[in-house]
Amino acid sequence: MGRAVAIVGTGHSKFGVRNDVNIAELAWEAMREAASEAGIELRDVDQVVVGNAGGWSSEYLSSIVLLEYAGISGKPVYRVEAACATGSAAIKAAHDAIAAGEADLVLVVGVEKMNESPTPIVVEMIGRAGNYFWEFENFGLTFPGYYALYATAYMSEFGATEEDLCRVAVKNHHHASMNPKAHFPRAITLEQCLQSRYVAWPLKLYDSSPITDGAAAVVMASEDLARKLTDSPVWIHSIGMASDTSNLSKRPDFLVHRASRLAAERAFKKLGIEIEGSYKHFDFANVHDAFTIAEILAYEAMGFAKLGEGYKLVREEQTYVGGLIPVNLDGGLKAKGHPIGATGVSMAVEHVRQLQGRVEKGRQAEIKRGRSLAHNVGGTGHYAFVTVYGLDKPRSR
Amino acid sequence: MGRAVAIVGTGHSKFGVRNDVNIAELAWEAMREAASEAGIELRDVDQVVVGNAGGWSSEYLSSIVLLEYAGISGKPVYRVEAACATGSAAIKAAHDAIAAGEADLVLVVGVEKMNESPTPIVVEMIGRAGNYFWEFENFGLTFPGYYALYATAYMSEFGATEEDLCRVAVKNHHHASMNPKAHFPRAITLEQCLQSRYVAWPLKLYDSSPITDGAAAVVMASEDLARKLTDSPVWIHSIGMASDTSNLSKRPDFLVHRASRLAAERAFKKLGIEIEGSYKHFDFANVHDAFTIAEILAYEAMGFAKLGEGYKLVREEQTYVGGLIPVNLDGGLKAKGHPIGATGVSMAVEHVRQLQGRVEKGRQAEIKRGRSLAHNVGGTGHYAFVTVYGLDKPRSR
Repeated sequence: MGRAVAIVGTGHSKFGVRNDVNIAELAWEAMREAASEAGIELRDVDQVVVGNAGGWSSEYLSSIVLLEYAGISGKPVYRVEAACATGSAAIKAAHDAIAAGEADLVLVVGVEKMNESPTPIVVEMIGRAGNYFWEFENFGLTFPGYYALYATAYMSEFGATEEDLCRVAVKNHHHASMNPKAHFPRAITLEQCLQSRYVAWPLKLYDSSPITDGAAAVVMASEDLARKLTDSPVWIHSIGMASDTSNLSKRPDFLVHRASRLAAERAFKKLGIEIEGSYKHFDFANVHDAFTIAEILAYEAMGFAKLGEGYKLVREEQTYVGGLIPVNLDGGLKAKGHPIGATGVSMAVEHVRQLQGRVEKGRQAEIKRGRSLAHNVGGTGHYAFVTVYGLDKPRSR
Repeated sequence: MGRAVAIVGTGHSKFGVRNDVNIAELAWEAMREAASEAGIELRDVDQVVVGNAGGWSSEYLSSIVLLEYAGISGKPVYRVEAACATGSAAIKAAHDAIAAGEADLVLVVGVEKMNESPTPIVVEMIGRAGNYFWEFENFGLTFPGYYALYATAYMSEFGATEEDLCRVAVKNHHHASMNPKAHFPRAITLEQCLQSRYVAWPLKLYDSSPITDGAAAVVMASEDLARKLTDSPVWIHSIGMASDTSNLSKRPDFLVHRASRLAAERAFKKLGIEIEGSYKHFDFANVHDAFTIAEILAYEAMGFAKLGEGYKLVREEQTYVGGLIPVNLDGGLKAKGHPIGATGVSMAVEHVRQLQGRVEKGRQAEIKRGRSLAHNVGGTGHYAFVTVYGLDKPRSR
């Protein structure tokens, strides 16, 4: 159909509580590195897409502020938002511009500076992104509560335990300990996780992703330009998108993450991949582990495990390097951090570097199939994006 | 390059103070009509793009709320924002998805429900979309003040008068008087405008666009599908985008609207149109008349008049039906209203209906060239989008 689209440069800020920089300086850390890797000047790009959910400070129009600081005012730009999947939506918009022939070189920058608001305000504001009127305003549900509903339903139905949830945290912290850009670049023990305080039973502090500031950027190019700029482009093979009602009470059950499943089916359909056992097609994956239970639900939604068996993958350590399907080798949202607008772009950065075999030893996947999967959720499953990256140019183009 | 993209259905809510509906009901008025005109069911679309700036109420994630109310939860969707040019950015994103072959049928809905906040809050929040730190926070500039700076510079340099500004308002109210969907569907006299109270000298109440609630929607399709759905598709010929610093104090002067000029040049380049005298290529145009001075600056930025001579077009009534280039035949932002996320989509609705010769008598342009221009600004010129619509399929595709 459209033209093939490749990523030719990546940049990533240190994730964490970044009170040392403003939002433009934070974004610049990633933009500068992405341009440098691509061997371009930022002024060479035809268009910019900004992924930023915003709302944490009283300043608006982050796109314009970012471009001005980077010295590229004038460039075509717009901002994209899909809650916690904002970064993936930005990559989709940039992909389409290049595939359509509207642009040859596009910069995508995802950024979020969440710690400008105090933590209780952030928790409230994220809560409003649940089902606002019925569940947040009337019942006071915030995101830990939402995911606790998932966790209790799952544990009750399938026999998973709090230990199983904590095993996800232990794995992702293990990987983060080798990722210097992670918010928490350190390992934890199962006991530490189990002894951490409850946030919303059965979820504990260590089951939860932190409130993180961070930025990530990629330079994307048409095939012609990609061939000129690099010997090792990473291609976008497929993007599947879906949405769902925000109302958990209207979803058929808490055990199947419906938008994620639908997004995966759509992404896989273009590639002729069957969803059951899909892990055989990928060297590694990122899934949206905003809470540990979310990672287990994602295993099942992506077809890595049958319904009700996702927790066994982590119990059997099949999602570490060397397992059936290594997952969240960068530490995931859980330990790398989850600066909302940056997360989907950060996944893209990780996938490019993993596929090119250049991440830190110990968390580098073995690259045999040359293909990887990134799964990014917005809200409690309001949005889902599944993006497949690969070393070979996609065949249909 | 990419595939040709057509609009096959349009929908438009009544604009005004719409306390009778919530945001989903408001959007539905436009979505329902667009689907009906296209002869499709909403569930037939491959993707939805939502244009909504938001921030007027405590509810987030408007996209999800809209889809749920319309009964199409599950559809791929994301939200796009480019300040007051949000609607045009949404059309650009949808265009690219179809041109790239990623989707065949896309619904774009632009919506804003601004009157959920009290007027002083709305004025403050829009003010933050100027240059936040230096100009808004330190000097208290809000948008009437920004555009007053444009107006005083322009009047001082070129000899335009307050009467000339009011002539824009009189013209746009004249057109709005024939548009039942307009916020103010009534004519005003020059005296009424001149006697209205100052908001920021030399701009008066009647020089200013109102705070409006409204929604607009279009169904966009690939060529194959468009041919099946309608005998009279309207094609997107070209989209030009640009940005600029938010800092008025850093722009070289107040007399040239730089982002608008750049966006027009980019849109025209694809079509081989020279910017000087560009009006010869169009049957009519919409320009971004957030304030009356903005319409005059836009005439010059679009190449309809030489620098410093835009006010003569309105003095000579050349932008009425029958003039050199009829402008804002729907009443414009000034009298039709300016619900931020809806405005760019509302322009698209107007252009399709004008080109098809089916708007109200008296404000219908004579269609000879079969081509029209829509100009949409975000901020004080932070963003600009120029979209060219046409009755013939674009030649290069």
